[in-house]
Amino acid sequence: MEVLIRQATEKDFPKIWEIFHSIVKEGDTYTFSPDISFEEAKKYWMNPAVFTYVATLNDEIVGTYIIKPNHPGLGSHVANASYMVHPGHQGKKIGYKMGLHSLEEAKRLGFKAMQFNIVVATNEKAVSLWKKLGFEIVGKLPKVFNHKKLGLVDAFVMHRFLE
Amino acid sequence: MEVLIRQATEKDFPKIWEIFHSIVKEGDTYTFSPDISFEEAKKYWMNPAVFTYVATLNDEIVGTYIIKPNHPGLGSHVANASYMVHPGHQGKKIGYKMGLHSLEEAKRLGFKAMQFNIVVATNEKAVSLWKKLGFEIVGKLPKVFNHKKLGLVDAFVMHRFLE
Repeated sequence: MEVLIRQATEKDFPKIWEIFHSIVKEGDTYTFSPDISFEEAKKYWMNPAVFTYVATLNDEIVGTYIIKPNHPGLGSHVANASYMVHPGHQGKKIGYKMGLHSLEEAKRLGFKAMQFNIVVATNEKAVSLWKKLGFEIVGKLPKVFNHKKLGLVDAFVMHRFLE
Repeated sequence: MEVLIRQATEKDFPKIWEIFHSIVKEGDTYTFSPDISFEEAKKYWMNPAVFTYVATLNDEIVGTYIIKPNHPGLGSHVANASYMVHPGHQGKKIGYKMGLHSLEEAKRLGFKAMQFNIVVATNEKAVSLWKKLGFEIVGKLPKVFNHKKLGLVDAFVMHRFLE
């Protein structure tokens, strides 16, 4: 029962969508509209300019993440990434494993640092995971996230170098 | 000799491009590649999802700015904006006037706050202008900007509410 992580292919997307949709419809972690469509999500998550990965457990896709440059041109040495774990597979360190994997991948791809632009402050599991993986809070954004249950809440900018 | 600010139309773009290109080729303020093409710049600056403005002086376009949501969906109540002043028209408070105008426009468009994601720390004129217009530094990003002359330098995240 080992978690394996590999690059995604287009035919993985229906299963990725199940995870994506189950996460974003909650409106508590990502800025994507909770009503985002399959096609819009696919255009974003499987974009040719983005590196897309899946985590599998017994050949089942249980998590997914993407890496991309956080800015074009003169900011393109800093990576940005997003991660989603299947709600039925929480507590199996899949987020942690994808996090570790993404740091190695980002380094391999030539990025010098990784930055998360909007880690929702009430998402304590995420904040704690990224701290464990060496990220620091470098910014606090007041009321920038419109949480579906809590209304406007703060978010953090988190950053780490990839040396 | 009054600076007038209005929404841009497509036929303004050749003149906007003169300003855009003269700014980004310096590689000291914006993450756009200094080699960005006319078409790429137009696709970004005149995007239908973006509100584009020009500042004129004696019917000549001397500045331009854009407003857009900083994030989709649950982050779309926060505006993001970018500003460029013609290098031949510095010192005429055109940046300040566009800044003020953009705050009013963003409010009118229903945004609740404005956030700049990457204000280059060595661009002291910009940092000082945004402070004067009520922005606070809410984040400090280490070495996220690849300055054409200075190499990797820090940048700030700046934010203000629009009440």
